[in-house]
Amino acid sequence: LLLIGDVCRTLAGVIDLAVDWMTDLKEGVCLSAFWYSHEQCCWTSNETTFEDRDKCPLWQKWSELLVNQSEVGIWAGSWLGTPAIPHIKTILSGFIIRGYLGKWTLLIKTVTLVLVVSSGLSLGKEGPLVHVACCCGNFFSSLFSKYSKNEGKRREVLSAAAAAGVSVAFGAPIGGVLFSLEEVSYYFPLKTLWRSFFAALVAAFTLRSINPFGNSRLVLFYVEYHTPWYMAELFPFILLGVFGGLWGTLFIRCNIAWCRRRKTTRLGKYPVLEVIVVTAITAIIAYPNPYTRQSTSELISELFNDCGALESSQLCDYINDPNMTRPVDDIPDRPAGVGVYTAMWQLALALIFKIVVTIFTFGMKIPSGLFIPSMAVGAIAGRMVGIGVEQLAYHHHDWIIFRNWCRPGADCVTPGLYAMVGAAACLGGVTRMTVSLVVIMFELTGGLEYIVPLMAAAVTSKWVADAFGKEGIYEAHIHLNGYPFLDVKDEFTHRTLATDVMRPRRGEPPLSVLTQDSMTVEDVETLIKETDYNGFPVVVSRDSERLIGFAQRRELILAIKNARQRQEGIVSNSIMYFTEEPPELPANSPHPLKLRRILNLSPFTVTDHTPMETVVDIFRKLGLRQCLVTRSGRLLGIITKKDVLRHMAQMANQDPESIMFN
Amino acid sequence: LLLIGDVCRTLAGVIDLAVDWMTDLKEGVCLSAFWYSHEQCCWTSNETTFEDRDKCPLWQKWSELLVNQSEVGIWAGSWLGTPAIPHIKTILSGFIIRGYLGKWTLLIKTVTLVLVVSSGLSLGKEGPLVHVACCCGNFFSSLFSKYSKNEGKRREVLSAAAAAGVSVAFGAPIGGVLFSLEEVSYYFPLKTLWRSFFAALVAAFTLRSINPFGNSRLVLFYVEYHTPWYMAELFPFILLGVFGGLWGTLFIRCNIAWCRRRKTTRLGKYPVLEVIVVTAITAIIAYPNPYTRQSTSELISELFNDCGALESSQLCDYINDPNMTRPVDDIPDRPAGVGVYTAMWQLALALIFKIVVTIFTFGMKIPSGLFIPSMAVGAIAGRMVGIGVEQLAYHHHDWIIFRNWCRPGADCVTPGLYAMVGAAACLGGVTRMTVSLVVIMFELTGGLEYIVPLMAAAVTSKWVADAFGKEGIYEAHIHLNGYPFLDVKDEFTHRTLATDVMRPRRGEPPLSVLTQDSMTVEDVETLIKETDYNGFPVVVSRDSERLIGFAQRRELILAIKNARQRQEGIVSNSIMYFTEEPPELPANSPHPLKLRRILNLSPFTVTDHTPMETVVDIFRKLGLRQCLVTRSGRLLGIITKKDVLRHMAQMANQDPESIMFN
Repeated sequence: LLLIGDVCRTLAGVIDLAVDWMTDLKEGVCLSAFWYSHEQCCWTSNETTFEDRDKCPLWQKWSELLVNQSEVGIWAGSWLGTPAIPHIKTILSGFIIRGYLGKWTLLIKTVTLVLVVSSGLSLGKEGPLVHVACCCGNFFSSLFSKYSKNEGKRREVLSAAAAAGVSVAFGAPIGGVLFSLEEVSYYFPLKTLWRSFFAALVAAFTLRSINPFGNSRLVLFYVEYHTPWYMAELFPFILLGVFGGLWGTLFIRCNIAWCRRRKTTRLGKYPVLEVIVVTAITAIIAYPNPYTRQSTSELISELFNDCGALESSQLCDYINDPNMTRPVDDIPDRPAGVGVYTAMWQLALALIFKIVVTIFTFGMKIPSGLFIPSMAVGAIAGRMVGIGVEQLAYHHHDWIIFRNWCRPGADCVTPGLYAMVGAAACLGGVTRMTVSLVVIMFELTGGLEYIVPLMAAAVTSKWVADAFGKEGIYEAHIHLNGYPFLDVKDEFTHRTLATDVMRPRRGEPPLSVLTQDSMTVEDVETLIKETDYNGFPVVVSRDSERLIGFAQRRELILAIKNARQRQEGIVSNSIMYFTEEPPELPANSPHPLKLRRILNLSPFTVTDHTPMETVVDIFRKLGLRQCLVTRSGRLLGIITKKDVLRHMAQMANQDPESIMFN
Repeated sequence: LLLIGDVCRTLAGVIDLAVDWMTDLKEGVCLSAFWYSHEQCCWTSNETTFEDRDKCPLWQKWSELLVNQSEVGIWAGSWLGTPAIPHIKTILSGFIIRGYLGKWTLLIKTVTLVLVVSSGLSLGKEGPLVHVACCCGNFFSSLFSKYSKNEGKRREVLSAAAAAGVSVAFGAPIGGVLFSLEEVSYYFPLKTLWRSFFAALVAAFTLRSINPFGNSRLVLFYVEYHTPWYMAELFPFILLGVFGGLWGTLFIRCNIAWCRRRKTTRLGKYPVLEVIVVTAITAIIAYPNPYTRQSTSELISELFNDCGALESSQLCDYINDPNMTRPVDDIPDRPAGVGVYTAMWQLALALIFKIVVTIFTFGMKIPSGLFIPSMAVGAIAGRMVGIGVEQLAYHHHDWIIFRNWCRPGADCVTPGLYAMVGAAACLGGVTRMTVSLVVIMFELTGGLEYIVPLMAAAVTSKWVADAFGKEGIYEAHIHLNGYPFLDVKDEFTHRTLATDVMRPRRGEPPLSVLTQDSMTVEDVETLIKETDYNGFPVVVSRDSERLIGFAQRRELILAIKNARQRQEGIVSNSIMYFTEEPPELPANSPHPLKLRRILNLSPFTVTDHTPMETVVDIFRKLGLRQCLVTRSGRLLGIITKKDVLRHMAQMANQDPESIMFN
């Protein structure tokens, strides 16, 4: 875990620096050293005030050259992409996707991530970084036999790695741990919590050493507001929560519809072309608007910011009272200037643009994350609402709602806080996080005092979004990919019994079973050929049907193949036996084949009267793939995870066949 | 949950105000209105500087009267006490303690909590508040049939209530949720996380309305340091972590030894006397030392504080450079004055006193929490280390370790930060929290930038404490009480099988079973009388031993009693049957008794070859109390939770008989 945390963090640090440099490369170059980003280049500059900092002489803008944002993005296209978190989530639930966490994936993902994030497309880096971290985790756990041999232990390491991934993406160690707990992991024992915490500590520590954000604070979007919030403001905050929920619903529905279309039509055959087209459109539309031209992180940072006296941005272009001296902090509410009105229009356009382009971008064959685009949408909406409330309060401070808390000349409304709340609401609407969302917002902004607004927005946004559909974006993508994923969040409350779900159903041919000492090698080979089950229950005899164990198809095939090649006297009509002692056979019969080694003597069983509520619970908590059904020791049938999923879909009045399985 | 959150918060707010008032009542009284606390009394006073605030004329000190701190404490003794969190934890793991969450407990606990916390004893209020919250949760869930009838659902509500309890104790909503997740709850599904979050939101919201801390910040010990921390400081921080771990070990060992003595000797028979003696000793020893006289919360607050220019406290008595003007913030390191040296001595004495008295106080028959005393111990030690490092850096800034980061005239060391780190380390050593500890510290102090020091201290302290014994204080108390509690944190890695653990063992009489249709009422009554098992497996017949279900002892007794009273023809030699159809009986036999209704048709079974690792996992995750062992459908034996616990103790080389069970 030390290794994972360290390597992740170093990778993330390098990625951060590379992205900074590449993003700024689009705008200009540092004359003193070309590998410096804008901020680093001007660091040593003597201009100390904030306004002059942008004019530092060493930094040469390329504004005239109009370097297209897409140049790097095109490059990145088509390389191992698609959203990572749904896949990791499925892997952690026990499903195996081969090669997804390999060394090559790690290498390619790391390189393309830099290209993609700096390309200006509407995507974040937390998804790919979780993927990179899990690749690291997989690699390191393959080095230690304790983890490489035990699938469950390896999954615990991957959970911790996912935590480290989010931790390093945003410098939010605790938020990362909770994100892994709430969103990514399937089974999260306390041992894993403690491990994730350790991995996150190492990541946070290495982060401080590398210091990619260029300030001594470990916080990406540090905010410092000078006024508290007021009870009456809860109303717009909740409104922002509603907006976040609606955005989440809209995004999930449209994105899934678009991804489904990509999957089912010819569109999916041209992933490179798609990336080029989307990048080109993004670049062309984004460039004219200053709020879409700048990198999304910078945009969020600017929107979160409170307007201090030294702020030169367009968003802070308020009309100052000439009679008033200018204190550093605590500036009263002022009427908006021309710049603010221009900014409002540009923000409205940026909002529409971001909403549309994110829907089409997430799910393309490039590494993509959702946090930053979602937060940007929320921050834009929040800032606009904030400015609206601020101007309303300034111009109408005699209204009843404002009279109590907003005297003229006081600083009552902080539009940046609205942006922060909006960002939380939108992120919550898309991912349905609760606790981890609030903690991540704390760690991103340092705004610990605004816990009630953030929680209120998170709760509202989750409620609104859940009202339109229970699935978050990650579950929706898992569903879209047709993975057999048993969501831990759904409750199953129907009164069906195991006997209603198990196969064979009434009228179906009986269950394919092996007997413990009466089938020949040929019988078994025929059975394997004729069916495609993953394994077969082993019973005492066809008459008694008393269950003794379960044999995996793969191991059966291997054992028979090996025996036929290496063991003498094994022919097609050799008897196969699973007991300790060979059965008594007639004198001239061929040598029998002992297969007890491959027999799982502790298969999981339930009785036919077990309520399905319990069965679903067992499948979830123990991560089973199948379960045998018995009645007084006699084998009746089998329930697989897919049977459970189909039954749950049926009970929820969905078409059970709509659940695709790969 | 809305109700729970709201009621809890209101109760906690009332408790807070009452405690404030009672604490100050020991020192003096407000002349303008006796029900005001010191702070409220002086609120309207015209003295605005901090130094003069203490001299506000309306507040009349009673210093001469020497009001004994114990006066209120004595009162509180003997009322339903003992640490609450271990009990709640056991209840959440599935064990039933009758009456522990009743209405009377709620009432008495609320009243005594006020008395005890204001008595000046060395204890906190988070434990009792968790208890109060769980009582509320239990009460409200008994109103809704959905929760009152389903034990599992009710436990989920209790988990959420525990979260609300910690949330309201410290105004730490997210920390409370995580505390419930990490420390209190046994099974914490995501649904519960979301519910706890909602309860915590309501609590935080109501908290803001009541505002018991008297400032607009929702933070109990708000800190604001003006300098970052330096890498070299990690060394003392880790040292504090080691101290925290050692304190945790010492506290747990001594406290458990003392509680065991109380439990096993005649001492336990005089709980009221014990409380009076401890209170009297606490009062007499605590009074002379100013750091033990003030309330523990105030002490912690003072220790966490950075010395600003306006600070009048003894801890901030540094010698000012006369050439220097006094800026408000950013005061450079200065040599310590007489006051600081006095304070160091008094703090050292206070540290020893707090350590000793906390060991004897926690576990007495009064409501008691551990957070505040533990944090106080750590804060005292941390502040002392901090002042030491500060003076070392001031006097020896040419040493290699200081040369890099501590120029003369700079503000390098913040002793308050050391106090904060020390408090986290000591709390972590006692409770073994990780993520929740760091989040609670954030929420208590607002010090989000000090995440790496806090995490480093938490990790070190957990490591050190775990090296001396895996049990945290709550597990140790559960163990002491002899509850059958299967800790989710322990890993079981031995290669034993179910057959090694199940009873009957070799040579023991066979398992007491019921047959499905051949035993008479008298047979069963004899069996019930001769054994004390909680239930009996039901098999087809003694020959086949095929399992069909499980019958609870309690339900059997009830059913037979009812049948004998109300059902005609039921006599001692009536046949009892568990099948659908009555068995075929000789013509003159008495009327048989049908008992299928009380038969659990889906008892949990494993095969005799199941590894114990799997069995332990199943017991934990499904919260089982017993599990039947079969081989090819034939009943072999039974494994109860107590068997599992005994086996685990045996494998850990402990005496299995040392585990007491109530």
